[in-house]
Amino acid sequence: MDKIRQTIRKITEIDAKLMIKAQSRLDNLTKPLGSLGRLEEIAKQVVGIMGKEKIVFKNKVIFTLAADHGVTEERISAYPKEVTSQMVYNFLNGGAGINVLARHVGARVVVVDMGVSSELKAQSENLKVKKIALGTQNFAKGPAMTREEAIKSIETGIEIVEEEIVNGLDIVGTGEMGIGNTSSSSAITALFTKTEVSEVVGRGTGLDDAGLENKIQVIERALRINKPDPKDPLDVLSKVGGFEIGGLAGIILAASSRRIPVVIDGFISGAAALIAYQLEPKTKEYMLASHCSVEKGHKVILNYLGLDPILDLNLRLGEGTGAALGINIVEAAIKILNEMATFKKAGVSESNPR
Amino acid sequence: MDKIRQTIRKITEIDAKLMIKAQSRLDNLTKPLGSLGRLEEIAKQVVGIMGKEKIVFKNKVIFTLAADHGVTEERISAYPKEVTSQMVYNFLNGGAGINVLARHVGARVVVVDMGVSSELKAQSENLKVKKIALGTQNFAKGPAMTREEAIKSIETGIEIVEEEIVNGLDIVGTGEMGIGNTSSSSAITALFTKTEVSEVVGRGTGLDDAGLENKIQVIERALRINKPDPKDPLDVLSKVGGFEIGGLAGIILAASSRRIPVVIDGFISGAAALIAYQLEPKTKEYMLASHCSVEKGHKVILNYLGLDPILDLNLRLGEGTGAALGINIVEAAIKILNEMATFKKAGVSESNPR
Repeated sequence: MDKIRQTIRKITEIDAKLMIKAQSRLDNLTKPLGSLGRLEEIAKQVVGIMGKEKIVFKNKVIFTLAADHGVTEERISAYPKEVTSQMVYNFLNGGAGINVLARHVGARVVVVDMGVSSELKAQSENLKVKKIALGTQNFAKGPAMTREEAIKSIETGIEIVEEEIVNGLDIVGTGEMGIGNTSSSSAITALFTKTEVSEVVGRGTGLDDAGLENKIQVIERALRINKPDPKDPLDVLSKVGGFEIGGLAGIILAASSRRIPVVIDGFISGAAALIAYQLEPKTKEYMLASHCSVEKGHKVILNYLGLDPILDLNLRLGEGTGAALGINIVEAAIKILNEMATFKKAGVSESNPR
Repeated sequence: MDKIRQTIRKITEIDAKLMIKAQSRLDNLTKPLGSLGRLEEIAKQVVGIMGKEKIVFKNKVIFTLAADHGVTEERISAYPKEVTSQMVYNFLNGGAGINVLARHVGARVVVVDMGVSSELKAQSENLKVKKIALGTQNFAKGPAMTREEAIKSIETGIEIVEEEIVNGLDIVGTGEMGIGNTSSSSAITALFTKTEVSEVVGRGTGLDDAGLENKIQVIERALRINKPDPKDPLDVLSKVGGFEIGGLAGIILAASSRRIPVVIDGFISGAAALIAYQLEPKTKEYMLASHCSVEKGHKVILNYLGLDPILDLNLRLGEGTGAALGINIVEAAIKILNEMATFKKAGVSESNPR
């Protein structure tokens, strides 16, 4: 718990003064005032986050955290839970969606086993094994994990960032893999945003109507049985969370404490963002929402946090795929700020008030 | 006119059979069915356009066409018309928004002088001088150009693509620069989509309320005086168009005839797309709308053409900036199709109907 407290203590407001300076530079670039819309806002926010004006994203890293969920016993997913570990191998072999998109945007993918239910037979410099346990317990019958495990999952997220900073880390993308984790995210979202379960549950990887109805009932039962306290984020994480979700919350806290921008992926990453935000509201200023997921609970999270998604491409894959594309737009925004000529330098006439 | 007719004759339907094959490959990739949303749709469309499955975008080209507009006499822009040529120099020096974003996505920018009102003192391998005239006439007083000039501007666009194919051309982005050209685009949009002028006129580079009111009146007057015939796209182009708009319409026709995907930028590119579409409706299948501009007429165009914009970043700069970012997403989509592993290859279990 000390590690979490120390990290939170280091999270400061973002630099409002430098943001004003960035705005003034943006206003002098050879384009009509404000005509690059969101790109300008993003550039300004990132300057505020990093506390410097000359920014180069040399090391773009997507953290894809994998873990299993005991609640899969309740048949809440269209896929068997073995897929979690099978997909980890796919990540390490470079064949998954996140690998393709990370290569496309020049990011590296760091895969972390936060609690896959089998021992992985893989050694790779891209894999960190940080197992908290062999999957969570079935939260439809009791807590998903102990409070100690919840703390450890967040602390592990912090550790992962600290380790990766040694290799270079200028911008973070969040990602995950875990069959069953939209159920966990729905429960977390319903609790913190005080929304009906049925309003935050989607089809995940592809449930039919009966499957969706069952999923809603399982989550409602889980909340009745566990009674998580929404004022205590660690209680929520331990009762209905997941190890990858705790890990991502830790990554968000650590990145914020190091003034590194965090590009949040979709629904599950959003649930982790809710936990980080409950632990320290200032983390919100360090977040950029990459996209709006098809999973309907995600919009509830974005509204609650007041985050405006950069992209809306009807994605619902997770893994960090939306974050990868979002990072690319954030990088474009920073290049606009850095590389465009000013009116003066380019000898272009400015506008006449008209 | 022969050149336009010949080009149109070569435009065929896109390949529906190959699109079904692409869908089947997408369905076998290691992700839940349809979970990459728009990326999957885009990949499928591009396969249909190019008529092949293995696609690599080695040569991404943004055509930024510049021309002046006589209607600037009517004070319809917040910027003096000299900015058109000044910005061409900025493009050639690499300091404009389009240069930054094209570099970011690995595209080259081909700048074309379609009718800047001064003789440019620049020689660059990135500049094509294809002047139709030293700017259009003031269309608030009579036709912007002759019918012959309208034909020549479209034919020049076709020529530009033919010339550039020699250097390699796998995907096209449209872009433009021309102080006054949102006025021309508003007139074109109002005519083809049968919409009130006031519903398709925006603030362009930054008009105040009085400037906006004046702009609406100028365009209404232009339509009254010129009476362009919306059933005759060449009449519309000659009466209220611009040389860069005609050029872009030619580029869209030529790219479609060569089965090259065309990523359409914002409002002015959209007006050019309307002209291309009126000349040959099949061009629509070759278009991808990169983004939705802040200029309100753009949404009217997108609705009319039934194009769903890829991005919505509140851009209104033009130059091809939205197209550059759009090309990047299209490339990501194609890489998903080409590079992701199938369930079988990766040894990942498929979903159970549930």
